[in-house]
Amino acid sequence: MKNNEATARVVIENVSPVIDGGIYAIKRVPGEKINIEADIFGDGHDHIRALILYKTSNAKKWKEAPLSHVVNDSWKGDFYVDELGFYEYTITAWIDHAETWQAGFVKKANAGENMELELRIGAEFLKKMAKKAKGEDAQLMKDLAAQFDKPTDYHATVELGKSHKLERLIADYPLRENPSQSNTYKAFVERNKALFSTWYEFFPRSSSPDPNRTGTFKDCERIIPRLANMGYDTLYFPPIHPVGESFRKGKNNSTTSQPGEPGSPWAIGSKLGGHKAINPELGTLEDFKSLVKVADQHNIEIALDIAYQCSPDHPYVKEHPQWFKWRPDGTVQYAENPPKKYQDVLPINFENDDWENLWNELKSVIEYWIGHGIKIFRVDNPHTKPFVFWEWLMGEMRKNHPEVIFLSEAFTRPKIMAKLAKVGFQQSYSYFSWRQTKAELTEYLTELTKTELREYFRANFWPNTPDILPFYLQNTGYNHSAARFVLAATLSSNYGMYGPVYELLENEPMPGKEEYFNSEKYEARHWDWETVTPFHELIAKINHIRIENAAFHSTYNIEFCETDNANLIAFFKQTSDGSNRILTVINLDPNHKQSGWVKLPLQLLEVQEGHTLKMHDLMDGTVYNWNRQWNYIELDPRFISAHIFRITLK
Amino acid sequence: MKNNEATARVVIENVSPVIDGGIYAIKRVPGEKINIEADIFGDGHDHIRALILYKTSNAKKWKEAPLSHVVNDSWKGDFYVDELGFYEYTITAWIDHAETWQAGFVKKANAGENMELELRIGAEFLKKMAKKAKGEDAQLMKDLAAQFDKPTDYHATVELGKSHKLERLIADYPLRENPSQSNTYKAFVERNKALFSTWYEFFPRSSSPDPNRTGTFKDCERIIPRLANMGYDTLYFPPIHPVGESFRKGKNNSTTSQPGEPGSPWAIGSKLGGHKAINPELGTLEDFKSLVKVADQHNIEIALDIAYQCSPDHPYVKEHPQWFKWRPDGTVQYAENPPKKYQDVLPINFENDDWENLWNELKSVIEYWIGHGIKIFRVDNPHTKPFVFWEWLMGEMRKNHPEVIFLSEAFTRPKIMAKLAKVGFQQSYSYFSWRQTKAELTEYLTELTKTELREYFRANFWPNTPDILPFYLQNTGYNHSAARFVLAATLSSNYGMYGPVYELLENEPMPGKEEYFNSEKYEARHWDWETVTPFHELIAKINHIRIENAAFHSTYNIEFCETDNANLIAFFKQTSDGSNRILTVINLDPNHKQSGWVKLPLQLLEVQEGHTLKMHDLMDGTVYNWNRQWNYIELDPRFISAHIFRITLK
Repeated sequence: MKNNEATARVVIENVSPVIDGGIYAIKRVPGEKINIEADIFGDGHDHIRALILYKTSNAKKWKEAPLSHVVNDSWKGDFYVDELGFYEYTITAWIDHAETWQAGFVKKANAGENMELELRIGAEFLKKMAKKAKGEDAQLMKDLAAQFDKPTDYHATVELGKSHKLERLIADYPLRENPSQSNTYKAFVERNKALFSTWYEFFPRSSSPDPNRTGTFKDCERIIPRLANMGYDTLYFPPIHPVGESFRKGKNNSTTSQPGEPGSPWAIGSKLGGHKAINPELGTLEDFKSLVKVADQHNIEIALDIAYQCSPDHPYVKEHPQWFKWRPDGTVQYAENPPKKYQDVLPINFENDDWENLWNELKSVIEYWIGHGIKIFRVDNPHTKPFVFWEWLMGEMRKNHPEVIFLSEAFTRPKIMAKLAKVGFQQSYSYFSWRQTKAELTEYLTELTKTELREYFRANFWPNTPDILPFYLQNTGYNHSAARFVLAATLSSNYGMYGPVYELLENEPMPGKEEYFNSEKYEARHWDWETVTPFHELIAKINHIRIENAAFHSTYNIEFCETDNANLIAFFKQTSDGSNRILTVINLDPNHKQSGWVKLPLQLLEVQEGHTLKMHDLMDGTVYNWNRQWNYIELDPRFISAHIFRITLK
Repeated sequence: MKNNEATARVVIENVSPVIDGGIYAIKRVPGEKINIEADIFGDGHDHIRALILYKTSNAKKWKEAPLSHVVNDSWKGDFYVDELGFYEYTITAWIDHAETWQAGFVKKANAGENMELELRIGAEFLKKMAKKAKGEDAQLMKDLAAQFDKPTDYHATVELGKSHKLERLIADYPLRENPSQSNTYKAFVERNKALFSTWYEFFPRSSSPDPNRTGTFKDCERIIPRLANMGYDTLYFPPIHPVGESFRKGKNNSTTSQPGEPGSPWAIGSKLGGHKAINPELGTLEDFKSLVKVADQHNIEIALDIAYQCSPDHPYVKEHPQWFKWRPDGTVQYAENPPKKYQDVLPINFENDDWENLWNELKSVIEYWIGHGIKIFRVDNPHTKPFVFWEWLMGEMRKNHPEVIFLSEAFTRPKIMAKLAKVGFQQSYSYFSWRQTKAELTEYLTELTKTELREYFRANFWPNTPDILPFYLQNTGYNHSAARFVLAATLSSNYGMYGPVYELLENEPMPGKEEYFNSEKYEARHWDWETVTPFHELIAKINHIRIENAAFHSTYNIEFCETDNANLIAFFKQTSDGSNRILTVINLDPNHKQSGWVKLPLQLLEVQEGHTLKMHDLMDGTVYNWNRQWNYIELDPRFISAHIFRITLK
């Protein structure tokens, strides 16, 4: 054992946030805070001092933030992060002998003891402390030490020993003798968009204004301004690569296709190329680059799909047969969920000895598109590829491309979704699509924001996707879709919508399933990309409210407010400096007017009942004065299903 | 990354029991079970198999125990330990491709598909499995493989593919391809007495039958048979070393002593020696060894006190001045809790550069007494010495003396008590002395037995100690003391009593304090060691019930039973094989008869309402037949404050 370990008398345990003992980094974006807690105690009754030490991984010098004792040996403190990349944090703590001495000094002096010897002990501390100080304080401590050693006026000197002045000096010039230190833990800081993003998804082949041909990247360029006006900042495309011909799927997932049918974009690869190629029906690489540029001019980023699977015609099958599972008849095992078969898709067999080449090739796919300006990827079914691969890949990305964001499309069991987030996916699809009642939404948001998940799992709320048309939305009208949109956009700082089916209210299902009828997964569609409906206006309004109100730039600040009506959900969000404060109230009943009372979170607003609050309804510009804790609300879905109040204190 | 890491597709997370990420070993005694839980999942939908691997640290070969999926990726399993010393356990899990194949086979066959290719895939699994088998099963699998490759009767062969016979073979001969493995964790198995022990404490200097002199080890020998008859197995003595003369304490903690006063035994050390010497007033080392021998003949172990502190006269002060904190006036800092002073006791300053010699010397004290047959130590105030020292010392003891038991006398805050247990103390004093109501007792026992504490914290319940005369017992009579004794002895498998003050009902306090008046800490007393009162008979009866009923040999098996009266506490305990089942009901009201209804734990008894249970009341020999879930009880503290029923199923 080393000397510094053997003489360290403070125990630091149970540090949080720490994910799985520190194997995984917690996540933040610049400007976010890390709240540290730990159990800290020593032997005996001596006083303890504790600090958080933190720095970016590249920095040499630690910064410090204070930790304070709360109750029962539990300590708390916090610090803010502001740079991208890895941070490290640790806790140091030590017995503060000078502070312990002064606390005893006060008690003994008050008990009327002779303090001469105690003053001489104090002088020894002051001499040591003076060596760590400069200027006035150094001189002050030297003078005090001299006086403590030989008091000219005993009573006055004892008063100095008890003084707040001395207490302040002891606090400011701690003698860090025999410090203990906890393990060092990591945070990874990503760009702000990891936490605040507004996604739109459409199929580029459905972008054509001409009913006689399918859409191209050129057509997509014309849609960009419309999406920008609607307030979207991220445009995600299903795979844009050549589609396989073998076992190509037809309309409505038919196992046979007719000549000319385009197939599923997820059946990636043909003789024209694989994951680094572009389907020529959409255009050329130049067309794609042009689209990325146009999008960028409108502050929209293009997000691509990463689906690590192959059509039977993908070049990998011939070039790297060792990456697939071969059957005794010399064919490759296709994807299946018995008795269902997906013969147009071959899964990669990761249990192969050539894994290193495989992993590097898969990584090179992402790097290829990063090389063409793409910094956001939506990853298809990551939970069907090994976690150890993702952990490696995300590690490589964090090292070389910390600005890149990956959205995990894992609609599966909770621990699996959490694991993908732990290994590094910046965002994750969520259970939002199936959380409808006030109780369900409150429970789910509480789980996401008040448990350990808040440290690493960033949910992205989608009311629909090409794979999910929830029963709730099937064959319904504006009220249903609008309510679900408003919930997604206000509850979560990351949300997305698959359109234009959504805002055009096309929601006919495959009977009995949560799938779209005539799904764009299996055919190109033609849409009216010109009309502006009231729903478009609602979307634009709310997306701009999100942009302009920083309270909506995080999900973790949500605090639910009581209402006396189970159809009215209310929640409060504010920035950490309180400069933007929002109360949102939504009617969950798409069919009827609902009214009730909403309880303001006066404690969070730091006002008393009776204080007048100005409630600026951002939906219609009305301003209300509220001065009671409980306030009356009514919302009629025929007109408007939500109030979004910006609150200002008079 | 190694090949075996890169191709392992199963994740094993959140293993329990694991203390602080595996830094500390969980504890068991031979015959106890370790219940393992973990989150285990893979990518995709393939079937997973998982096993616990465990062994003693010295063994080369792992033993295996099954793990089964419970719900939501949580798996459970268990194993028993039977040898002293360290055990290791880990989890291994892998994708079972054969099982996955068969499950798909059944679905596809039932869907009427052509199964020829699937049979050929199955044949490949069978050939591999056959290589791991011998005898009949090996031949069976070779035959099946041949038939699957070339079915003579297609339909019969498909039935074989679906058969339970094949399912059994797949389960029995798993192909452990690309297995994952969790970290390895440790358990430390201690002798049974760590979990089941019955302690008695008295001051040897109070053992004299002659009022004109103080007691000696020879006098103690005469008391041994009495304690054996009362059912005690552990006799703990306060320090037996020479007592310092400087600042010796007088009667009732007076700061001055009169000539002839013996001082506090915790002021250890004089010119006659220190922690390895015996106070000559008690006798010689030979006398002590003789006492240990007599005790052993009565199945009683002597436990010594380890108090790492010194009187100002202790030889260490001159021989190792670097181990103490010196003041500017050339004196050593004594113990204090300002403004209280304990000038007869010098604490050791562990923050010194000579820590290695200090630690080794302190260890040698224990080894000295181990050398004289002592295997149990009660450690005085361990929370006032560094945890890092205890962690080292307990590690040394586990390595060299796994049979030795240490009882931690840390009456302090919860996290500190837990830490001492984690670093290795086998037993700990507890908050029992201050838990009186049914709600308090239930909550405390639940914390001790249903949280992580159960893995490493073994509470020892003491109704009193020389330092603690709880307010509840002060100036009361038999009913109060008897009730607290019965609670300690039946709730906890480890309990102790400081006598003979306890059973002689001497409970006059220092006014306003939980301290004894005329405490034996500061003077020798003379007691009647001959009389046998009803209280002695009660103690003997209950201690023998404890010995004879294995359900009382653990604390962790406690299950509280509902009663409809807050003064009646009821709890059920049984051995893991159900061979001994005990229901205890205690009246917590020392002043009045209490009656009410007690609910039997029929589920734990595995019987239905209406089944007749024989209730053998071990207190008075009566047998009742109960056949209802709720049963009437009444207990009058003037006669008896508890029922202890042994339950047998007809």
